[in-house]
Amino acid sequence: MNEKPVPEAAANGFGDMPAEDFRAYGHQLIDWIADFLANVGDLPAFPNVQPGDIRAKLPASPPDKGEAMEQVLADVDRIVMPGMAHWNHPRFFGYFTSSGSAPGILGELLGAALNANNMLWQSCPAATELEQVTLDWLRQMIGAPPEFFGVVYDGGSSSTFHAIAAAREQVAGLNVREHGLNEAPRLRIYTSEQGHSSIDKAAMALGLGMESVRRVEADDEYRMIPQALAGAIVEDRRAGVLPFCVVATAGSTSCTSIDPIPAIADVCEREGLWLHVDAAHGGAAAVAPEMRHVLDGCDRADSIVVNPHKWLFVQMGLSVLYTRKPDALRRAFSLTPEYLRTAQGDEAVNFMDYGIPLGRNFRALKLWFTLRYFGVEGIAARIREHIRLARRFAEQVDAHPDFERLAPVPLSTVCFRAHPRGLNDEDALNDLNERLMQAINQTGEAFLSHTKLRGRYTIRLVVSHLRVNEEQINRVWEIAQERLLALMRAEKWLAGKWR
Amino acid sequence: MNEKPVPEAAANGFGDMPAEDFRAYGHQLIDWIADFLANVGDLPAFPNVQPGDIRAKLPASPPDKGEAMEQVLADVDRIVMPGMAHWNHPRFFGYFTSSGSAPGILGELLGAALNANNMLWQSCPAATELEQVTLDWLRQMIGAPPEFFGVVYDGGSSSTFHAIAAAREQVAGLNVREHGLNEAPRLRIYTSEQGHSSIDKAAMALGLGMESVRRVEADDEYRMIPQALAGAIVEDRRAGVLPFCVVATAGSTSCTSIDPIPAIADVCEREGLWLHVDAAHGGAAAVAPEMRHVLDGCDRADSIVVNPHKWLFVQMGLSVLYTRKPDALRRAFSLTPEYLRTAQGDEAVNFMDYGIPLGRNFRALKLWFTLRYFGVEGIAARIREHIRLARRFAEQVDAHPDFERLAPVPLSTVCFRAHPRGLNDEDALNDLNERLMQAINQTGEAFLSHTKLRGRYTIRLVVSHLRVNEEQINRVWEIAQERLLALMRAEKWLAGKWR
Repeated sequence: MNEKPVPEAAANGFGDMPAEDFRAYGHQLIDWIADFLANVGDLPAFPNVQPGDIRAKLPASPPDKGEAMEQVLADVDRIVMPGMAHWNHPRFFGYFTSSGSAPGILGELLGAALNANNMLWQSCPAATELEQVTLDWLRQMIGAPPEFFGVVYDGGSSSTFHAIAAAREQVAGLNVREHGLNEAPRLRIYTSEQGHSSIDKAAMALGLGMESVRRVEADDEYRMIPQALAGAIVEDRRAGVLPFCVVATAGSTSCTSIDPIPAIADVCEREGLWLHVDAAHGGAAAVAPEMRHVLDGCDRADSIVVNPHKWLFVQMGLSVLYTRKPDALRRAFSLTPEYLRTAQGDEAVNFMDYGIPLGRNFRALKLWFTLRYFGVEGIAARIREHIRLARRFAEQVDAHPDFERLAPVPLSTVCFRAHPRGLNDEDALNDLNERLMQAINQTGEAFLSHTKLRGRYTIRLVVSHLRVNEEQINRVWEIAQERLLALMRAEKWLAGKWR
Repeated sequence: MNEKPVPEAAANGFGDMPAEDFRAYGHQLIDWIADFLANVGDLPAFPNVQPGDIRAKLPASPPDKGEAMEQVLADVDRIVMPGMAHWNHPRFFGYFTSSGSAPGILGELLGAALNANNMLWQSCPAATELEQVTLDWLRQMIGAPPEFFGVVYDGGSSSTFHAIAAAREQVAGLNVREHGLNEAPRLRIYTSEQGHSSIDKAAMALGLGMESVRRVEADDEYRMIPQALAGAIVEDRRAGVLPFCVVATAGSTSCTSIDPIPAIADVCEREGLWLHVDAAHGGAAAVAPEMRHVLDGCDRADSIVVNPHKWLFVQMGLSVLYTRKPDALRRAFSLTPEYLRTAQGDEAVNFMDYGIPLGRNFRALKLWFTLRYFGVEGIAARIREHIRLARRFAEQVDAHPDFERLAPVPLSTVCFRAHPRGLNDEDALNDLNERLMQAINQTGEAFLSHTKLRGRYTIRLVVSHLRVNEEQINRVWEIAQERLLALMRAEKWLAGKWR
């Protein structure tokens, strides 16, 4: 395509890009994306760049005159692509993967074109009602009770923040909404030592402070010990601290451990505490009927977060908070200035009443497209396959004399490390595994991320990617073994000596 | 196109939609969008639906088996479109409009395809650095000082929430991050009576409570009175309250009034208070050199919010907070668990350190595409034209014996009402204008929203839409006059009697 300058009218300040130009560039970009999706496995999973490299290729100032779209698209290849960590790469196994599907791309494209703000029913009825319906579909898919009301936030951290705010608003005799925490006693949130950092972040933001978070001991499989929780609550009450919320986890970030939620729910009911369940990653597994047990006890929770953008193949920016107490959430956040009052009053749901965000884009479309295209069974089948592949990888680790597994595999994440025969110094093992993971990532063939489990440097393999298959799993296992061998050779480990 | 079922492999749980199918549906959707953008002016700006109408057309449960994409796309026409408030309609004048451009659609499409999570530099170097560069471009465009550091949030309410959290973290002797507000005195935030509701919402969420927000008197043109601010601070200090933050507004939501920021900055400097400027809508105007004055004094602010998704033609979900004190923001929100530690350490910016969200999609692309395609001059020219058109509309209101303007027009929003000769009962005027706005919106030809200014029901015409032009302005003015006449006839007003 020849370069087409910005048309005179557009350059001079009238209107948008002509629709026919949009059509042409749109087709061009769709073709680019189709090729990208077909070939992303041939690109490096992680780029070979240093901080500042991409920035250095970009002009320091914006262009005065409009530029041809061809130049912009060419710069995607020239500047953006060489700096991409490819979350779409079939051997991207890091963090919790987000592998947005092709139907999700189409849904997001449509949402960008319609560009409605779903703050009020009246600001876009279709966006509000499609959000209600798709969230109710997802609720059914994970087996949550019908009284659970869903709201979309941008991510799991935001969902948990809003849940804890609702819990705080429920504390008898406080009325934080009006008076703040000025005369409140020290409040306490409990979570296990494996609970997500978003809980501390929420405590900081909500004015509770990190001191309000008490980390409860976990068992050998990294699950909260309910007796330890009960003991901590008794201890706190004696010290004049006011317990109000427990965050249990179904699929912890480090190792996907699943807290014993029924026993935790017993404690919460007895003590009158809000139970929030962080199932941001793990909740997806419940879509497969045989995995429904991961959410056992969640029907007794006050709130639960599930992120379709993690293991349900929807693009980033779609986390769902379900709560049986939408009124508490609303009391914590609703505020309607005159310019947002509408004739519908309480007849319709106005999602702005349930959180900080007022600008809310039409995110339900990508969830709707994805759920419909794959169907419940298609999604369950993918999740089932991921669990099978993760177990297969775990078996290979278990069988290898120089590797070991560091946690159970209740879902599809494998925590492992190299542990060469005879090397038993924990510092040396940590150092070796850190270098091993970097060496794997430096091949560009795969990307993994790490955690620490009880002080041990742990490599995580998260098998929840839409593009993963047995071949990819076999290949990353080969790479891990090759890189370990290379490190050991370089370190003369084969001569029986470490460093 | 014939219906193409979900392919066997995809239905059985392996992989994504085949790339060639994505290509075909992508082209189909691009064509649909091109037609939509060309013809959106012929669609109703607001749909004729009641709460529940769209929901009733959707199945109560998700499909077990995957569905053909053709069905999904057909349902966009059948179910979604009849429920759309068309924010793209050239006569959508409500709220603050968000008219995402065609380049912005392409940028969002690309972001959905790349689907990277920009939480850490290491989770996607290109996304982090492109966000840094485009935000620095925008900073230059509005004339903000080089030391201003930018972060993207989903909307203005979130930006203001994060700014006030940073201000709170700065309060000497408190350390809210660790200890919370437990032993803090009553803190106070000041804003004018026209300040945005997000300020109260932030106070609620941050544990300060609505009582922490003090609304300062505004002058006849709805601008904060600096002497009243200074007086309120003295009064509060005497009462043992601790002032810590002032939120000034450059472009208030009701009527785009612009607070006297230099005088407010004087007060803040003298009193040692954090000055946050809400320029979510108004900041865009500063891109036009002759309008740079709207941000006068902002170089002395501690933080300022500007929303490209309002008047800079970028899709929803892109608000920017600039602050000269990124360390305060970071102290309020940073927290790095082991699984998010990276080798870069402090060498690179990790945007997750500056807020609640951990999942952050690649939003800079749509800003980059839009700024480059239109160029600074192209964007300034559009803003200039909107201001011209708004003034023209205001002149017509002023000249009409049965309409009146209710506020100055410092930017491109006109606040007006019908005020038929001889009708001077304020309740009757409020009632008439509420019905007039509804009647205008019921035509489907235009959409406006309202506010109240000192008790008076006020119709707002926001001229900041990419597709607006003189013809659209003339037409909405005609509709307003026609509808008023019809209401007056129906009410036998012409016989000299009101109701």
